[in-house]
Amino acid sequence: MRWREPPAIYLEDCGSPVERSSYLIQLPTADGGSYDVIHDASSPAAGDCCAQQSSARHNWEMNYQEAAIYLQEGENNDKFFTHPKNAKALAAYLFAHNHLFYLMELSTALLLLLLSLCEAPAVPMLRLGIFVHATLELFALMVVVFELSMKMRWLGFHTFIRHKRTMVKTCVLFVQFIEAIVVLVRQTSHVRITRALRCIFLVDCRYCGAVRRNLRQIFQSLPPFIDILLLLLFFMVIFAILGFYLFSPNHSDPYFSTLENSLVNLFVLLTTSNFPDVMMPSYARNPWSCVFFIVYLSIELYFIMNLLLAVVFDTFNDIEKRKFKSLLLHKRTAIQHAYRLLITKQRPSGISFKHFEGLLRFYKPRMCTRERYLTFKALNQSNTPLLSLKDFYNFYEVVGLKWKAKRNREHWFDDLPRTAFLIFKGINILVNSRVFQYTMYTVVAVNGIWILVETFMLQGGNFFSRNVPWSYIVFLTIYGVELLLKTTGLGPVEYLSSGWNLFDFSVTLFAFLGLMALAFNMEPFYFIVVLRPLQLLRLFKLKKRYRNVLDTMFELFPRMASLGLTLLIFYYCFAIVGMEFFAGVVYPNCCNTSTVADSYRWVNHTIGNKTVVEEGYYYLNNFDNILNSFVTLFELTVVNDWYIIMEGVTSQTTHWSRLYFMIFYIVTMVVMTIIVAFILEAFVFRMNYTRKNQDSEEDNGIVLEKEISKEEVVGIIELYKRSSAAPETSQLQKIVLQMDKYGQMSTTFLGRRSRTKSDLSMKMYEEEIQEWYEEHSRKEESQAPLQESASASTSSLKPLSLRQRSQTVI
Amino acid sequence: MRWREPPAIYLEDCGSPVERSSYLIQLPTADGGSYDVIHDASSPAAGDCCAQQSSARHNWEMNYQEAAIYLQEGENNDKFFTHPKNAKALAAYLFAHNHLFYLMELSTALLLLLLSLCEAPAVPMLRLGIFVHATLELFALMVVVFELSMKMRWLGFHTFIRHKRTMVKTCVLFVQFIEAIVVLVRQTSHVRITRALRCIFLVDCRYCGAVRRNLRQIFQSLPPFIDILLLLLFFMVIFAILGFYLFSPNHSDPYFSTLENSLVNLFVLLTTSNFPDVMMPSYARNPWSCVFFIVYLSIELYFIMNLLLAVVFDTFNDIEKRKFKSLLLHKRTAIQHAYRLLITKQRPSGISFKHFEGLLRFYKPRMCTRERYLTFKALNQSNTPLLSLKDFYNFYEVVGLKWKAKRNREHWFDDLPRTAFLIFKGINILVNSRVFQYTMYTVVAVNGIWILVETFMLQGGNFFSRNVPWSYIVFLTIYGVELLLKTTGLGPVEYLSSGWNLFDFSVTLFAFLGLMALAFNMEPFYFIVVLRPLQLLRLFKLKKRYRNVLDTMFELFPRMASLGLTLLIFYYCFAIVGMEFFAGVVYPNCCNTSTVADSYRWVNHTIGNKTVVEEGYYYLNNFDNILNSFVTLFELTVVNDWYIIMEGVTSQTTHWSRLYFMIFYIVTMVVMTIIVAFILEAFVFRMNYTRKNQDSEEDNGIVLEKEISKEEVVGIIELYKRSSAAPETSQLQKIVLQMDKYGQMSTTFLGRRSRTKSDLSMKMYEEEIQEWYEEHSRKEESQAPLQESASASTSSLKPLSLRQRSQTVI
Repeated sequence: MRWREPPAIYLEDCGSPVERSSYLIQLPTADGGSYDVIHDASSPAAGDCCAQQSSARHNWEMNYQEAAIYLQEGENNDKFFTHPKNAKALAAYLFAHNHLFYLMELSTALLLLLLSLCEAPAVPMLRLGIFVHATLELFALMVVVFELSMKMRWLGFHTFIRHKRTMVKTCVLFVQFIEAIVVLVRQTSHVRITRALRCIFLVDCRYCGAVRRNLRQIFQSLPPFIDILLLLLFFMVIFAILGFYLFSPNHSDPYFSTLENSLVNLFVLLTTSNFPDVMMPSYARNPWSCVFFIVYLSIELYFIMNLLLAVVFDTFNDIEKRKFKSLLLHKRTAIQHAYRLLITKQRPSGISFKHFEGLLRFYKPRMCTRERYLTFKALNQSNTPLLSLKDFYNFYEVVGLKWKAKRNREHWFDDLPRTAFLIFKGINILVNSRVFQYTMYTVVAVNGIWILVETFMLQGGNFFSRNVPWSYIVFLTIYGVELLLKTTGLGPVEYLSSGWNLFDFSVTLFAFLGLMALAFNMEPFYFIVVLRPLQLLRLFKLKKRYRNVLDTMFELFPRMASLGLTLLIFYYCFAIVGMEFFAGVVYPNCCNTSTVADSYRWVNHTIGNKTVVEEGYYYLNNFDNILNSFVTLFELTVVNDWYIIMEGVTSQTTHWSRLYFMIFYIVTMVVMTIIVAFILEAFVFRMNYTRKNQDSEEDNGIVLEKEISKEEVVGIIELYKRSSAAPETSQLQKIVLQMDKYGQMSTTFLGRRSRTKSDLSMKMYEEEIQEWYEEHSRKEESQAPLQESASASTSSLKPLSLRQRSQTVI
Repeated sequence: MRWREPPAIYLEDCGSPVERSSYLIQLPTADGGSYDVIHDASSPAAGDCCAQQSSARHNWEMNYQEAAIYLQEGENNDKFFTHPKNAKALAAYLFAHNHLFYLMELSTALLLLLLSLCEAPAVPMLRLGIFVHATLELFALMVVVFELSMKMRWLGFHTFIRHKRTMVKTCVLFVQFIEAIVVLVRQTSHVRITRALRCIFLVDCRYCGAVRRNLRQIFQSLPPFIDILLLLLFFMVIFAILGFYLFSPNHSDPYFSTLENSLVNLFVLLTTSNFPDVMMPSYARNPWSCVFFIVYLSIELYFIMNLLLAVVFDTFNDIEKRKFKSLLLHKRTAIQHAYRLLITKQRPSGISFKHFEGLLRFYKPRMCTRERYLTFKALNQSNTPLLSLKDFYNFYEVVGLKWKAKRNREHWFDDLPRTAFLIFKGINILVNSRVFQYTMYTVVAVNGIWILVETFMLQGGNFFSRNVPWSYIVFLTIYGVELLLKTTGLGPVEYLSSGWNLFDFSVTLFAFLGLMALAFNMEPFYFIVVLRPLQLLRLFKLKKRYRNVLDTMFELFPRMASLGLTLLIFYYCFAIVGMEFFAGVVYPNCCNTSTVADSYRWVNHTIGNKTVVEEGYYYLNNFDNILNSFVTLFELTVVNDWYIIMEGVTSQTTHWSRLYFMIFYIVTMVVMTIIVAFILEAFVFRMNYTRKNQDSEEDNGIVLEKEISKEEVVGIIELYKRSSAAPETSQLQKIVLQMDKYGQMSTTFLGRRSRTKSDLSMKMYEEEIQEWYEEHSRKEESQAPLQESASASTSSLKPLSLRQRSQTVI
């Protein structure tokens, strides 16, 4: 069999780029000169390409690198004004943009944050000497200085100054530095509230981009939030005056005795935390006084608080859409920039595979040759040898795909001998049957009821007796058999590719570990036993709505985690401030003069010959170290009975302490409202999406199918061999061998990735996206003549073609 | 001046209707025969119209009435199968459809509900003898029987049986009747939980349509709600088992000692009501146990509860849209039905004014002739003498307009003599100036701060001294002057037409009344004085967002009120059940054996020579009469510390009582979630609307302008005179006289009404509405051939023309 000539697509493209990488312009004249020589001497003949000078290759490499950087900037939503402008900046950029550097950033930030575990007031077990923790802090700060200097080198002084976040970080760094030195010199900690600012080091980390976005979103939602908050506070003031006039004549009512009390108690009432107690004294005197409280709660709690949610939700929705739009356009611009660097003067209408491959070498170094080619093929919609800009626009959607050869065999056991095949086929049919599935559901349900009844029968006593209950063994055996059948019937790979199966697997594994723990009496692992009821979660597969909810939950998880982290950052700030002011102020029986004395009581008195301990426990909710502070702040977030903590601390300090608690309440209210709005938005969005695409509901992410023929593969191998650039052809040759073995002329590959929110948004805003694009290109057009001082052109890619033309003129 | 011949529009149309009113078919044959005679004998000649037989007029009157009934049914969203089918049913229908009957319905229902104030356990002041209240009840029930019999007469037995709500009502009525008789015979009240069903009488009232819609919406939102609720409960069970295993070995932890305790406490924890207390015993023993609670709250409270809101919100949105759609199509069908009854055989392409006027005489008897004509004119877009079906579709939008002659003078004082005019003009300019407005805002702000400071300085003591504070008088004077200036400058009518001015006016009036009360020392009215801070609300006019919020609030008010009423109906049911089971079970010091003993304590002990009263007050939250029950239920709705009430009652009864409280919590959760979803939906809708129509933001409802010329008026007068049907031409003649006086040839009238939610929805769904219409008419089309057995037609009004054709064939 003779291979046909490889099609034009594989012809080596050795023209010079239309646009030179900006790094090259800064190179010494000698090199620049040689560039210009090549620039002029480049000939369309393909034959002597390989003989070209290395500086031409170097030039192209530079272009690839810059294009890759543009694409990265587009992906990470980095603004283009931070784009490295010369070779020196490029070096710094490359140094500061890899996972090693990111990890260093992250670990420094975490070290700084974790230091508060060891600084006074420290967690007892982790206490370190002042000398030790101050030195550690100085070391971490030095690392931050190094990071910042790298950043300055990359950005240049002017951009560095203009970059707000970096400037704030520098200021904080400066303050921290001075304070750390002061601590080291004085050998004692002073009131260091500025430690709360350490969070900025974490927020600035590359890996915390999601947190930064959340914070931005929170700040953007603030203006309407504050408006409604003012309305809320305004009504509170009116009602406080009213309440003071109405209830202060009643001397048995401590809640409205002064205007300040009245205000504070109505603020607490807003959180419902002191209801109905706050009403009781007046209600006891006159039953109609309940009207005041009912009206207040109806207006404030049920109306304005919901209004707050509505306003935040609305703003949130709006911001989400605008954010998506700007991200989309930013990516588009990045692609345009990259495209401009990859086209040659000879073929200005598109990117050849060679240059595309060069780009990917920098953009995704780990990608293998096969995948690069498949990506190129998937992008190339027109089947011409060149990738047009229109094709290239899909870069981000396609580059994330994971490619796999489409297996011709249906099951993993297709190649086995006949008997084995039949057995496995039978198992396969069995595990896929409805009967099997429903039997398993029944078993799970019975198991659930069993556990419930068993637990109900146990009234205290020794739960973890040495003899393992037989029911445990029976059910575990059933699950084990199911697991075995499924693994053999579906093949391990397919079995574990489903999230639900993975869940089954891990729960069964845990149950097995629990059994081991029971059997060998390893007490510390007993807790695993109690995880058994989690098996019941499998029942939720039965109903479509639950599947939907749980799927959405998993989709939301990264975003939820970042919101949680954002909340933790707020916690950290408040925890530091709380520790500085309130560490050690509450202790058992501390607040006997306050109205909440009971909650802080700890009495150990003897009645008859029995010792009775009366414990109020609230002294445990303190700010004595950072872990305790976090728990206390969580309790404040949950809001119920928070005024007991507030009053306890207030009675030991001044009544200005209330401000701390009230501000914390308002801040968490903002964050919580945003979390609620986020969950609402995500679910409503998802449900709308399912409603719009009811036919294709059961899809598992994005799937793309591409067929490549043997000739193509051979052509690429040839290409690589000629350019002798990469030794990565072995994988390709393997494909050819495999095709030969099976006598196929082509292999089909499947590209797969999970669906992201961005994909969903793309589909939801389908109609609007085109408008945005047009608007965007109109805007660029109107800016282009000013920047480029060239006349208008009729090409559809005006900004680009304009630039091309102006360059060729120069 | 000679009047021209009136145009064709006024020609009296005396053709016979295309379709006969269904009531006529049921008339005795004699009349039917005469109808047929006219039917054939009707001639297009207009001359001898007036001489036509009265039976023809009777026929038309019947048609008018039936058309009016159709339109009413369309408006009230009554299904057409309840349409009265014959003359007898018509009489019953007319009897049962007027405000007198509605009022009777409402007052009977209210009487029945209010009876529970007097039945044991009664409110002390309102207690009535068993004989008295049982007799009252029987009387009310008799009235209901009468109402139902009228309804049966109107609906006919078959429809009556098919109408679910009516059937339920009948059953409840039957049960109530028997029970009332039993009470009367035994002369003692038995456990009458069925009293909770009395609500159905209120719900069935014509005036409570909004409540019925809310209930329907709540029931429609239930299925997804229950799904998520099950998820919630499921996790609760898992955590309860887990908690039991983890914490029950700790004997100082009463919260997890048994599985039941564990479940109940986790249920309460879901409401956060016992947090952090529930955590404290285990937290005191092992700090890491807080992880259990944090995970539980994060999953249940912060995730699934929000999910619940998301699901309800989504369903709610969907239902709102579908409801709007079905209502819109229902109205359209009603209009089609009415149209069919109003066109004549001679002129099948539209309705003449005469018939339109006849319709309005039944549909809106209070409307004057001028308004009827203006409505006709506003509907008539094509300026032909006949109203086509397309024009007629706008009936509901136009018929609600209030018409007023457009005044030619700008201000009320334009007609006054020169000097007076100038003075008033000056005042007008002054009150409309920004300086004046901002001065007033400053005064209000200063007043607010003054009140705040003044109140702050008052530390208890005699607030309402006999000497009125001078600041009060000063500010009141300023407000009085402002009010006077505005009234004179704008004219009283224009001044009071703005809601904000109305608010200013009433607040100032209240302040004045308060002054009177102070000056003349009328103690019971002192509370008016404390309303002064409400003046501050005026400041919110300053910002657009607040204006928006407050406007939306007013728009939402009717709907909010109906939601509140719905909640009250649920309260009533629970209050009755609560009273039957828990009346009198809690009293001071009742629950000394329970964990919440402190809250119910009432100790009066003497320390030294001082009497100290320790009051827990919670014994006031009881079910001793219906008013107390309502307050208790409100406290349960607010949720905070509800478990104290629950535990108190439980300790005095059985632990099954908890079910009552838990079910109440879940029910209020449903209603509250729906209220939140409603507020969210309304605001988000409104904000989207404002975003869509940013240009026309400052509109005050729907305004329509129509000009009518003198000839037209004269023509109508002629028409009325000839038909001698109505003596209502005096108003028209007045218009003619006025036109003569001012020498005008025409007068312009303005039709005005406030914008409703339906108008907003019309605009929001603009694009979809056309699709709905098409879909609807396609559906009708596909049904029409089956019903009418006629061939397809090409007219755009297919269902109608089909029917017309088939009728003419018959």
